[in-house]
Amino acid sequence: MRSITFDKINITGGFWKARQEINRSATINAVWNRFSDTGRVKAFDFKWKEGDDCKPHIFWDSDIAKWIESAAYIIAKNPDKELENKIERIIDRIEENQHTDGYFNLYYTLCEPGKRFTDRTCHELYCLGHLIEAAVAYYNATGKDRFINLLCKYLDLVEKVFVKENSAAFVTPGHEEIELALFKLYGCTGNERWLDLAMFFLNMRGTVPHDQSLYEGTHPKYSQSHLPVREQFEAVGHCVRACYLYSAMADAALTMKDEKLKYACERIFDDIVNKKMYITGGLGSSHKGESFTVSYDLPNETAYAETCAAISLAFFAQRMFILTGESKYADVIERVMYNGIIAGISLDGISFFYENPLEINLINHNRHICVSNGERLPITQRKEVFDCSCCPPNLTRFVASLGDYIFAENGDAIYVNQFIESEYEENGQSISIRTEYPSQGTVEIKSSFDKAVAVRIPSWCSRFTASVPYTRKGGYIFFDKGISDIIIIFDISPVINVSNPLVWENAGKCAITAGPVVYCAEGVDNGDLRGLFIKHNPNFTVEYSELYKTNIIKASAVKYKDNGQLYSTREFEKENTELTLIPYFAFANRGESDMKVWINVE
Amino acid sequence: MRSITFDKINITGGFWKARQEINRSATINAVWNRFSDTGRVKAFDFKWKEGDDCKPHIFWDSDIAKWIESAAYIIAKNPDKELENKIERIIDRIEENQHTDGYFNLYYTLCEPGKRFTDRTCHELYCLGHLIEAAVAYYNATGKDRFINLLCKYLDLVEKVFVKENSAAFVTPGHEEIELALFKLYGCTGNERWLDLAMFFLNMRGTVPHDQSLYEGTHPKYSQSHLPVREQFEAVGHCVRACYLYSAMADAALTMKDEKLKYACERIFDDIVNKKMYITGGLGSSHKGESFTVSYDLPNETAYAETCAAISLAFFAQRMFILTGESKYADVIERVMYNGIIAGISLDGISFFYENPLEINLINHNRHICVSNGERLPITQRKEVFDCSCCPPNLTRFVASLGDYIFAENGDAIYVNQFIESEYEENGQSISIRTEYPSQGTVEIKSSFDKAVAVRIPSWCSRFTASVPYTRKGGYIFFDKGISDIIIIFDISPVINVSNPLVWENAGKCAITAGPVVYCAEGVDNGDLRGLFIKHNPNFTVEYSELYKTNIIKASAVKYKDNGQLYSTREFEKENTELTLIPYFAFANRGESDMKVWINVE
Repeated sequence: MRSITFDKINITGGFWKARQEINRSATINAVWNRFSDTGRVKAFDFKWKEGDDCKPHIFWDSDIAKWIESAAYIIAKNPDKELENKIERIIDRIEENQHTDGYFNLYYTLCEPGKRFTDRTCHELYCLGHLIEAAVAYYNATGKDRFINLLCKYLDLVEKVFVKENSAAFVTPGHEEIELALFKLYGCTGNERWLDLAMFFLNMRGTVPHDQSLYEGTHPKYSQSHLPVREQFEAVGHCVRACYLYSAMADAALTMKDEKLKYACERIFDDIVNKKMYITGGLGSSHKGESFTVSYDLPNETAYAETCAAISLAFFAQRMFILTGESKYADVIERVMYNGIIAGISLDGISFFYENPLEINLINHNRHICVSNGERLPITQRKEVFDCSCCPPNLTRFVASLGDYIFAENGDAIYVNQFIESEYEENGQSISIRTEYPSQGTVEIKSSFDKAVAVRIPSWCSRFTASVPYTRKGGYIFFDKGISDIIIIFDISPVINVSNPLVWENAGKCAITAGPVVYCAEGVDNGDLRGLFIKHNPNFTVEYSELYKTNIIKASAVKYKDNGQLYSTREFEKENTELTLIPYFAFANRGESDMKVWINVE
Repeated sequence: MRSITFDKINITGGFWKARQEINRSATINAVWNRFSDTGRVKAFDFKWKEGDDCKPHIFWDSDIAKWIESAAYIIAKNPDKELENKIERIIDRIEENQHTDGYFNLYYTLCEPGKRFTDRTCHELYCLGHLIEAAVAYYNATGKDRFINLLCKYLDLVEKVFVKENSAAFVTPGHEEIELALFKLYGCTGNERWLDLAMFFLNMRGTVPHDQSLYEGTHPKYSQSHLPVREQFEAVGHCVRACYLYSAMADAALTMKDEKLKYACERIFDDIVNKKMYITGGLGSSHKGESFTVSYDLPNETAYAETCAAISLAFFAQRMFILTGESKYADVIERVMYNGIIAGISLDGISFFYENPLEINLINHNRHICVSNGERLPITQRKEVFDCSCCPPNLTRFVASLGDYIFAENGDAIYVNQFIESEYEENGQSISIRTEYPSQGTVEIKSSFDKAVAVRIPSWCSRFTASVPYTRKGGYIFFDKGISDIIIIFDISPVINVSNPLVWENAGKCAITAGPVVYCAEGVDNGDLRGLFIKHNPNFTVEYSELYKTNIIKASAVKYKDNGQLYSTREFEKENTELTLIPYFAFANRGESDMKVWINVE
């Protein structure tokens, strides 16, 4: 299976075109401005000294790197001299301040000189990984290789210190990222040294005793350092670290035809989606360690579900799709892209969630009336920047390169994985999609390729029709070569979802989805959410919302009434009411409000 | 209304006779032994010095005082030279080590000499209050007044420092207790100085600016110091502090015929039982501040529901009953004595809970697989002693003096509030109760008093029959003077209870009660509690359990089956099963186990 990358694809309309427009016109600059305000940009001047404001953090290189990567993806589709100049100025600073031996790092140069490669917790190789991804993206967008060359010089040093001399205080990075970046660099340059270096970091992981502990009080599982990668079959530890590692493992499985790695990746992926994933595609059941916990432990109000973790799941899933050609991986990409990922950004594109809870009960934010320090709960309104602001530029790069996930091809067929209004042209042949998805289920596909067309039937879809004959294989329906006009209509009527009975917290509750979109109830539409139960047969109606660029749902419900008694042997009185459900991704865009994805069923 | 105190009553059989036997034969000695092991007893030798083990805590005086009070109640009914000698030895030590000006306190004498009355947080007057309660109990049991006299000397000093000279660093105690103790002392001695001193502490509360803050980061509400007592209408802050205060306020309302205080007490009581009380009678929705939080905030798994708070609610309710004659107060005493209070002690009488959660999900105790510090949750097994071991001797004194709650009288009638096999005799007249309650609903009452008999109809009771004619007034049925043999049969069939819809966490769930007893499901009987739903019409059956000295309940239920899918648009398969429910008070007596009071309804 070969992926068809975003640069070859035009997204021409609909839900995601609007998102990309906001990303290009608002988000990319908003993130840059906040990074400027907070000293991240200025840090690249390398003039900071002890006592100054805005002390560089250990991961600021990666914040700017992800911003560059995002801007490069935007430039690739919409040349923009202003963005390009900003990138060039950063590359200038990198070139000026790179050490003569190739080393480059803000924090260790400015704040802890002489201590490079002494602390596995300090994200040096993680920062380098993001710089590599940025440099590859910039090269692909512009053909300019200065940035890549600077980083290859740094990588010469890394190879010397880590592989040849083994002289660093650790062997594998505390936060994975460089591995998948090296696969990208290998793909871009064809230089096998970078493949070898990636495989070195993968193969050494979990084999080096002094690499096992990371932060005090954390288990080696926190950084997936508890076992050699081919013996890891469960998703554990810090979710972003984990999925960046698993992505690189999938890259390696594909590149090296490594069946053991492929098997490990398949088992880990299944462990995630069958036991540890929120219905939104969110990952991370606890802020402690920002981590996976145990199977079926999916608390809603204290969900961590970091935006970056959702994005990293898409990365992992995409690589698994390329590795296997199985539609279930594209199913998960769809789940996370319409829910867990874009919940992380406000509709106006300038504010962000780091954590994405599935329930907000505002009472719990202010329940401690006599003691000032409350329980730890996720924030309820998005912010423009965080001290640890990894999520905003991760969102910008994901949205800008979204085209990556739409089409793929192998010798026999063009695969249509995501239903996004777009076109792909190559050598005079083209395929295009026209659709109002996800607000409507009709998808028109026109193809002039001399190949069959394979269309993913989403796992959420129980009914669809196609305008021309097809053959079903696995999660795809195949249209023979020569069929050029296809209309598929997916039934995207709202449906009730229930959780596995082992999810303690969701007992007696349901979540409403329509097509790939998960819905939620907010207090701003429904008043006090307490006492509100959706009916068993909720008689859904849908209407299009321009604000959300997809539908809202109305459902019949009952509201139990407070009669002043705390406990009763008689059912409390109830009255019929209508429940308004909005897309989960849009929660918290209209002020602070209670919110629930999992709603009690009458 | 006049209370008939336990010393005039013999508990002759049944559930509580067994409890008192365990209290007398096992608990009282077990608590003494643990207090010996931990240095609390030895501390009264006043030989501890810096560097020694077992540094006295600020409230150790009160631990021993409550033990003495308990032992005195036992002696009053069952003379016991060994217990009496232990008490005498402690009084000897108090006499030897009391300062010449009357002051007595372990901590401030041994650890912080010269700092007496400088720190409102340090429980000095609280300790004195418990010593007074102990001395009054011991005097009532033995007629010996040495202990009382020692404390009156101490009180002379307190009156001088706090009232006459106003020379302490605070005006009102940080932890209420001395107020209610002074009412007891006034009742015992008739000395109005102690009444005046009680009223001084009550009247000054919430009026003194420098008394308002207590611990850093706490609101004056924490110690009920935010408003003058007659302006307090809501239950706030640390629950035990609160209910000890409210008890004294009720004492004052009765003694002083203070209508404003009575009104405040009535409103506070209603606020507790209608908005802030667990179905078990437990109080305290958070370990932070061990406190009341906001209305309807009653989390089950993280419930604090301190044993002492449940006991303090019984104290408050009993005083409200005496003040008003209303049965609703005795209803609450019954609720808390069969549930929230005795959950605090193991069936063998030697281990204790400080916190009494309404749900245990063991997964949550071990969900953090890569980060070592988990969330804070109540412990799951009782312990023999705590660093802060206020609850064990509070339980021993409550059980030993349980007779206090059975009967009361006014000019017209003898009131039967609790259905405990017992007899009360005075001046050749007697009243007796025979019953297997709470395992059976039949209550036989024989009275030779020349008064009507008023029998409380519990608020949980929707059906009962009586063998002779009666008149209903409020929560009581009255049998005319001259009716000497009464048989009442309460329907104690299990019933389903639901919560007010404003209790977020109990939506879709029910709690089973039978008579006054709240039931729970434990994993040890039912396996994994996840996926278990009780049926709407659960077809209850009951059977007597010798272990619990009351019934267990079987109910029809369904168990949803894990099919490996995490989310589904189809209901998971289910099978019929039988749910075993045991009395809540007996949870965690058979090893660590999941537990739920609030159970999902199919």
